[in-house]
Amino acid sequence: MSKPTALIRNNLVALHETEGIGWLTIQRIFNAAAMEDAQARREADWRDLGLTPKQIAALMKNLQPDVADSRMTRYERSGIKVLTILDRKYPRRLRQIARAPWVIYYVGRLELAARPSVGIVGTRLATSYGRRVAEDLSAACSAQGLTIVSGLARGIDTAAHVGALNKAGGTVAVLATPVNICYPAENKHLYREIGEKGLLISETPPGTSLHPGLFPLRNRIIAGLSLGVVVVEAAEGSGALITAEDATKANRDIFVVPGPITSPRSRGGMLLLRQGAKPVLDEEDILEEYRKHLTKSNDIQFDPKNILHAGDPLLHLTPDETSIYNILLDQPRSIEELAAESGMTFGLLHSVLLSLLIKRRIHQQPGSVYNVL
Amino acid sequence: MSKPTALIRNNLVALHETEGIGWLTIQRIFNAAAMEDAQARREADWRDLGLTPKQIAALMKNLQPDVADSRMTRYERSGIKVLTILDRKYPRRLRQIARAPWVIYYVGRLELAARPSVGIVGTRLATSYGRRVAEDLSAACSAQGLTIVSGLARGIDTAAHVGALNKAGGTVAVLATPVNICYPAENKHLYREIGEKGLLISETPPGTSLHPGLFPLRNRIIAGLSLGVVVVEAAEGSGALITAEDATKANRDIFVVPGPITSPRSRGGMLLLRQGAKPVLDEEDILEEYRKHLTKSNDIQFDPKNILHAGDPLLHLTPDETSIYNILLDQPRSIEELAAESGMTFGLLHSVLLSLLIKRRIHQQPGSVYNVL
Repeated sequence: MSKPTALIRNNLVALHETEGIGWLTIQRIFNAAAMEDAQARREADWRDLGLTPKQIAALMKNLQPDVADSRMTRYERSGIKVLTILDRKYPRRLRQIARAPWVIYYVGRLELAARPSVGIVGTRLATSYGRRVAEDLSAACSAQGLTIVSGLARGIDTAAHVGALNKAGGTVAVLATPVNICYPAENKHLYREIGEKGLLISETPPGTSLHPGLFPLRNRIIAGLSLGVVVVEAAEGSGALITAEDATKANRDIFVVPGPITSPRSRGGMLLLRQGAKPVLDEEDILEEYRKHLTKSNDIQFDPKNILHAGDPLLHLTPDETSIYNILLDQPRSIEELAAESGMTFGLLHSVLLSLLIKRRIHQQPGSVYNVL
Repeated sequence: MSKPTALIRNNLVALHETEGIGWLTIQRIFNAAAMEDAQARREADWRDLGLTPKQIAALMKNLQPDVADSRMTRYERSGIKVLTILDRKYPRRLRQIARAPWVIYYVGRLELAARPSVGIVGTRLATSYGRRVAEDLSAACSAQGLTIVSGLARGIDTAAHVGALNKAGGTVAVLATPVNICYPAENKHLYREIGEKGLLISETPPGTSLHPGLFPLRNRIIAGLSLGVVVVEAAEGSGALITAEDATKANRDIFVVPGPITSPRSRGGMLLLRQGAKPVLDEEDILEEYRKHLTKSNDIQFDPKNILHAGDPLLHLTPDETSIYNILLDQPRSIEELAAESGMTFGLLHSVLLSLLIKRRIHQQPGSVYNVL
């Protein structure tokens, strides 16, 4: 079977949920091959990996099998599902971005994350012009089968979700809060509806309290899930521009709905226009870019084949990855055998193996033995 | 002296002012070498050149020296100046466009037509947003030395002239009416001010009554005089879009001030944006394109050298033109000698000579003898 061992998956979730342990630390732990045998590691091992005593105490508690079990039971009861980057169902496009979330939590129809989709984002302090345009564009795109991704914030985000919710493409709300918390509270009704008909996603572990640093992290997920990002109204310095920047880095299309050049609320988006973003006059400007993605059914059902294609050009292998992959094509190898055959240092080898795991080209068996998928 | 003979110049004006004789007919007459000896031509000659009896009667009257003299005296008394395309002072950029006017009439500071300039155009039914933006942009560009060209119409044109009038770059109004008629009448005060501080230009002979066909002709002159054209507000089908189209044909830059996508008044400009026009957020988007033209004084005085440079790359010679030019470099030749030496047909030769005259590379002496300038 091609699922990563439940143990590695559980340990990854435990690490992700330990307060103070960030993305880079988890990568370091992966590279040190400490993910599989995390339970066997001692305090000194974790200290060597850069963790503070407080983090170590919290992690060691989190790693205990009974704690992990009760966590999963709690999630199950609340209807929260958990996916790690090593899971087959993890959204394919999200896998492609820099610092893809190790773990995501979701409620609702995961298949929406595999559909052709665009992010529609903008200011919370939207004008009536901005809200109207966001809702109309979103409804028109969703009616043609394009899923609308946004951040459930006030203003443009809310209008975008409302427009798409009951149309063919549906809508995905990416939250900065844990997936079981609605913020802002005024969107409670919308939040519940998206949980039922759409998809709620968050990288933030349940129980985490909201802090401003979570919003930029949320923005990169909106960009990651989308083929392109549409900025409707955004002042200079708006969070929507961070989403657009993330989208540019992730090689996504950037669209801007023009507005009056005298409106400070439009200024940020207009600066993107100056930099070459595509102006949107109506939904056709968006739809024409993704027509080929929409040729099939407007309401395709979930199919794991849509999540990840081994031949996906965006998941190309580097020369190092190719050389390790070719060794494993012959037969499964332990990490020591791979080091001997490839001549790579353990540091490089671990990072290459992690990358191949994330790209779902190899599988890690117990005892640090790897085989191709 | 390098001025074309006064006779040819007068005959060209007489032809241009004869009702029903259009641009192509004048070109045909030029090509038939009938411009110089027009007074000597008989009715049958003109019939052969495609003129109707009515046109012939009017033309023969117009060609009479006393009629021509009284015309010029009348213009002089009204402060109207006349330029033909064969004149040295004829605006250089206007010379470059397809179907450049054979004759223009002007009142005011002709040197403004030689300055770096942009057209600012848009709908007569402007919104307060459009008027405000047009006036502010125009003032800001003119303050930096860019001359603003527009059409004196209601709405955007008016705002553009008002913004630029008292700034360094000044303003040029291109009229569809004769240059001594103000249309619309409500702009009388502005018209008078532009005549004093700026420049009024028209291709339409004094005495011609206004008809709708004159407006598109006016638009090509706005485009021709400008380095680029800025569309502020224009509904679909607006005359400003014709100006933009003329500007594209003349290889000028096209700028669009974005507006709300829900405003039909902005729709036409926004379609240009979709086609790749440059969005204007503020005057810098325009000025940055023409900084090199503005490096000298912001208020340069008229200098014929600024009007036409013999080495102007836009006035490149074709191979046929080069071969005739090279023959004339040796010594002046009659048209018969040129035909014999070049082996060209008289039809081709006339069109090559006309082109060289318009490009001001050669000069026509009495008796159809040509010499290089």
